[in-house]
Amino acid sequence: MTESEIRDAVREAAKLAKASNPLTPSITNTVTINFVANAQLAVGGSAAMVYLPDEGVSMAKAGAAMYINVGTLFPIYAETLPKTAAVLHEEGKPWVLDPVAIGMGQMRTDLLMTFKDYKPSIIRGNASEIIALAGLWGLEGGTDTSDVRGVDSTDSVRSAAHAAAALAQWTGGAVAVSGEEDLITDGRQIVLSQGGSEMMPCITGTGCSLGGVMAVYAAVADPFIAAITGAAVYNLAGTKAAAHASGTGSFQTAFIDELYIATPDAIAQNPLAVEEV
Amino acid sequence: MTESEIRDAVREAAKLAKASNPLTPSITNTVTINFVANAQLAVGGSAAMVYLPDEGVSMAKAGAAMYINVGTLFPIYAETLPKTAAVLHEEGKPWVLDPVAIGMGQMRTDLLMTFKDYKPSIIRGNASEIIALAGLWGLEGGTDTSDVRGVDSTDSVRSAAHAAAALAQWTGGAVAVSGEEDLITDGRQIVLSQGGSEMMPCITGTGCSLGGVMAVYAAVADPFIAAITGAAVYNLAGTKAAAHASGTGSFQTAFIDELYIATPDAIAQNPLAVEEV
Amino acid sequence: MTESEIRDAVREAAKLAKASNPLTPSITNTVTINFVANAQLAVGGSAAMVYLPDEGVSMAKAGAAMYINVGTLFPIYAETLPKTAAVLHEEGKPWVLDPVAIGMGQMRTDLLMTFKDYKPSIIRGNASEIIALAGLWGLEGGTDTSDVRGVDSTDSVRSAAHAAAALAQWTGGAVAVSGEEDLITDGRQIVLSQGGSEMMPCITGTGCSLGGVMAVYAAVADPFIAAITGAAVYNLAGTKAAAHASGTGSFQTAFIDELYIATPDAIAQNPLAVEEV
Repeated sequence: MTESEIRDAVREAAKLAKASNPLTPSITNTVTINFVANAQLAVGGSAAMVYLPDEGVSMAKAGAAMYINVGTLFPIYAETLPKTAAVLHEEGKPWVLDPVAIGMGQMRTDLLMTFKDYKPSIIRGNASEIIALAGLWGLEGGTDTSDVRGVDSTDSVRSAAHAAAALAQWTGGAVAVSGEEDLITDGRQIVLSQGGSEMMPCITGTGCSLGGVMAVYAAVADPFIAAITGAAVYNLAGTKAAAHASGTGSFQTAFIDELYIATPDAIAQNPLAVEEV
Repeated sequence: MTESEIRDAVREAAKLAKASNPLTPSITNTVTINFVANAQLAVGGSAAMVYLPDEGVSMAKAGAAMYINVGTLFPIYAETLPKTAAVLHEEGKPWVLDPVAIGMGQMRTDLLMTFKDYKPSIIRGNASEIIALAGLWGLEGGTDTSDVRGVDSTDSVRSAAHAAAALAQWTGGAVAVSGEEDLITDGRQIVLSQGGSEMMPCITGTGCSLGGVMAVYAAVADPFIAAITGAAVYNLAGTKAAAHASGTGSFQTAFIDELYIATPDAIAQNPLAVEEV
Repeated sequence: MTESEIRDAVREAAKLAKASNPLTPSITNTVTINFVANAQLAVGGSAAMVYLPDEGVSMAKAGAAMYINVGTLFPIYAETLPKTAAVLHEEGKPWVLDPVAIGMGQMRTDLLMTFKDYKPSIIRGNASEIIALAGLWGLEGGTDTSDVRGVDSTDSVRSAAHAAAALAQWTGGAVAVSGEEDLITDGRQIVLSQGGSEMMPCITGTGCSLGGVMAVYAAVADPFIAAITGAAVYNLAGTKAAAHASGTGSFQTAFIDELYIATPDAIAQNPLAVEEV
């Protein structure tokens, strides 16, 4: 796609999300679950969070798209997540995976391994997580020695480009690497989305809630455009919120405001660059 | 009751909650649990949240009133919720039920069925949830075909009036239907509470936290007055918060501020209309 | 230590936390988990929350310090918490315990009893909780008749001084009693930290998040100084936030802002008084 085609598609996705209020359920961590829901509502989606196996399956069927974040795992997830992801895959429903804290604990590793066959439409993570997931799935660019420290990245966004492309080629969807600039790829093209604020990593949940927002857009656009639209509205809102924040508390409040008032035009015009893989 | 008697009782309930700081524990969902607690504190209550069976029972005994919201069910709730509700019923403690997302999953249906015999003092939900609960309990005005989509309503408040009255007649308490205007009934009279803001459904948890606030008032007033007082302070705070919000982030912040500073007089004067069922 | 030595050490701890971004994982309640994480980030730490046994152990090994809050217990905690605390003790990692709602439910009592041998570096609670913990552990100044009402204190900070000193002498660490003024002791000296705002108990989580912040400082300073630094930055931020808050919603936003912008000098200069036990 040309840059101009991408911008047109982004504008359309932002518009459609507001117009159609897609039901976008999540199974996500308890730390940032409120932020995820409010961010999804701010961009036009309808949020619903669940934990139990039959509820995960029910939401996979009822939702227009779904978000799975493996942040704070509960024991029941050993049953809920594989069942839910299987239904999403069978029904061809778009879904977003956030492999947060990959490498911590056996259940997380087992679950992320299971997801390989259920091919998430969008994978969103920081550079270290994307590299580690490619490694876990035995794909190019991955490594099992990637240093994932808790939930923070120790690798640069660019260093994850090969892993991201390999993951996208495997799933047939898109991969988004979050960082100072965001890298989104469908395995053929790379879009670099710019803006944001250095306060974004100083509040918890900018990454998690971005995954939830990408799921809202995945209900109304293809995975590559959905991921680019999510990154664009986040970078736009981050830039604007930082301009009138006195610290990280008021930044978060302003950030939700900016997500809510961002127009499709402004989202489509947010700085981005297009490259071939 | 006449409108004037209702307004006097609302003023008294708002005053007593601030003066007596009633302990009002909750078992509620993880999405909006923080909002529930902060809203309860803002109107004068003391909040405490639990998950385990013996803790639910202990809180049912220690609390002045209690709030049960079936939002994000955990496996342990199969034991915790029936035991807790049974004690609330036996001890004659006022309690508020929010049947959120009724119809999703077997455990939710089983739990909500169990609650029929434990007669919640106040039931608060959106129109679709109230209609579906009346249907589940085999009461007039209910239907099992009500279209509950995730956590959002697809029915109008007025369309739930018969179901609400039937539920209130069964429990001997009150039922509150949230929507553009709020309908509260004790099975004999209907109060319509007005105000609020179109931003209220654009943040997660205005409904959940309203249930928690009604529980605080139920500790110091009868269920009908408690439900009206909760709806009144929410509509008042929503109207005032919207006047100086730049989006849904600052709206939520301002909304908690307005709950905290609302005076008993202002709450009692919030627009309402009284009708017979 | 003299007052001047204490102030110097506090300044250094505040500086080091910002400079080194220590990984400070938590196992904490779902009500205030987001507030804990954002407060930890605001003072310079890196947050990560877990629930499962092997993840608790993994975080105990990877973290620079850890925070355990027994607020909303899940069934799995019967396994997770003892295993995690054992590793923290074996590895000599500093950790902070918040014995919130001590006395409610059997699991909470059992867990808190287990922690006696794992000697938390800092224990933070309100007066009633500190007195009850000393009683549970059979130490001087404690009582099993202390009236812990839900999560709120019914005892004065001063009345918990003996219990606090006895606990600190047992653990070899520090104990912080939160209230109108905060009392911190290492069993030999007492520091009274002043400031804050009467709005602090009107939002949920000022206590919980203070425990998480003390854990961040415990990664870079000894327990006594870490606890004093945490109390100082909280009292400073509370005082400053109250000056421009319109209610408890904007207070919480401003409070996080003030934590984020507080300088090591301002933290070190916050009012405090030193006494011998």
